Amino acid sequence: MVRLHLRSPYGRDEIREILVECARLSGLRDAYAEVICTRGIPPAGSRDPRECENKFFAFVVPFVWIASPEKQERGLHATISGVQRIAQCSVDPTAKNYHWLDLTMGLYEAYERGGETAMLVDREGNVVEGPGFNVFVVRKGGVFTPDSGVLEGITRRTVMELASVLGIPLGWRAIPASEMRRAEEVFVTSTAGGIMPVTKVDGKAVGGGKPGPVTARLREAYWELHRDPRYATPVRYD
Amino acid sequence: MVRLHLRSPYGRDEIREILVECARLSGLRDAYAEVICTRGIPPAGSRDPRECENKFFAFVVPFVWIASPEKQERGLHATISGVQRIAQCSVDPTAKNYHWLDLTMGLYEAYERGGETAMLVDREGNVVEGPGFNVFVVRKGGVFTPDSGVLEGITRRTVMELASVLGIPLGWRAIPASEMRRAEEVFVTSTAGGIMPVTKVDGKAVGGGKPGPVTARLREAYWELHRDPRYATPVRYD
Repeated sequence: MVRLHLRSPYGRDEIREILVECARLSGLRDAYAEVICTRGIPPAGSRDPRECENKFFAFVVPFVWIASPEKQERGLHATISGVQRIAQCSVDPTAKNYHWLDLTMGLYEAYERGGETAMLVDREGNVVEGPGFNVFVVRKGGVFTPDSGVLEGITRRTVMELASVLGIPLGWRAIPASEMRRAEEVFVTSTAGGIMPVTKVDGKAVGGGKPGPVTARLREAYWELHRDPRYATPVRYD
Repeated sequence: MVRLHLRSPYGRDEIREILVECARLSGLRDAYAEVICTRGIPPAGSRDPRECENKFFAFVVPFVWIASPEKQERGLHATISGVQRIAQCSVDPTAKNYHWLDLTMGLYEAYERGGETAMLVDREGNVVEGPGFNVFVVRKGGVFTPDSGVLEGITRRTVMELASVLGIPLGWRAIPASEMRRAEEVFVTSTAGGIMPVTKVDGKAVGGGKPGPVTARLREAYWELHRDPRYATPVRYD
């Protein structure tokens, strides 16, 4: 937020309380919670963003999956997009934002090519991320994810922690599109779905065309974590 | 709109009628008219942009200047930004959009450096455009503006037409930041202000530090056009 010149009226602890209260009031047991800070609008006649009153929003809705549980079982079909992800020198991808015209255009392109979701590349042709998710490949039993040009997502971090606990080697480095197309396994991560296998890239089966064993192990461990008090915040419903 | 996968319920002629009617109803004699098309929101639970119902908005407000008439008389103070304009391979700049996080960050940087507005560069270090305006330099009596990586603005086009009528040589080509800093004259163009002189770039005076003669000639001719029926659409107020 500071990097985007946005001010939130609430700190970390207050935001946690607000979200817990939203979940409690909604009564939803499977809720998707979100906070958004907008720039707001400047006074009439002004175009100076410093004069905007930033707005804070928090809400919960019934859980929104990036991919339905059925699609997650069989694995997602992704295409590697011809649209380049907005470069880091233009918009900082590590500051979460919904400045998504590139990602949205990538989605339209994916649909036209028979895919269900898109992975965008950087100017060097390395896959970076997709609309709302980080990407991972499995190669020789090790897991790799891009080291830069991406949102450093919470679920991405959880995969790193799980890999460490499970003894799965994990590395951060550029992932050329060609490597993504011939990976043993591919998966994506998002708050809106957790760890989700990808079983087709650009129309071709990944590995055997079924979710692979490393992905399955991480995915199982991920959902287990929801019962771990270190990773969960309890909501006291009425 | 087609390039952004947006559908407007109205065609060109209908939009013109709507805007004229907005102006008439508002009673404003100096109005800023605008149409916006938004993607809209998808049905609950969906993240598919094809399922969004696009929304059309039209409004008029009291005229909004990018720079006040006083600042236009003395000339704007601009800084050449360290933020790169989002590249064409990520978002098409010729499809007008408000996907402006790069431009907004450039503005904050400009303010911090004592400027009033920002000009962003492409990855090669050529100046492309600013928040809501196209850029021009005057060199040896000729006028130059970037040929790519920019919105092909209406006022930019009007400058081309005026230059032709007035016998001022005009060229389209890349404008390195270094050339912008030592130009004889610099001006920017926008619907929200017309042709506006820039008299400081990165804190240094442009030319003599006052609006130059070529800019003044074009600016005068531009405002004259508002009385030309080929360029004006009459509004019949009650």
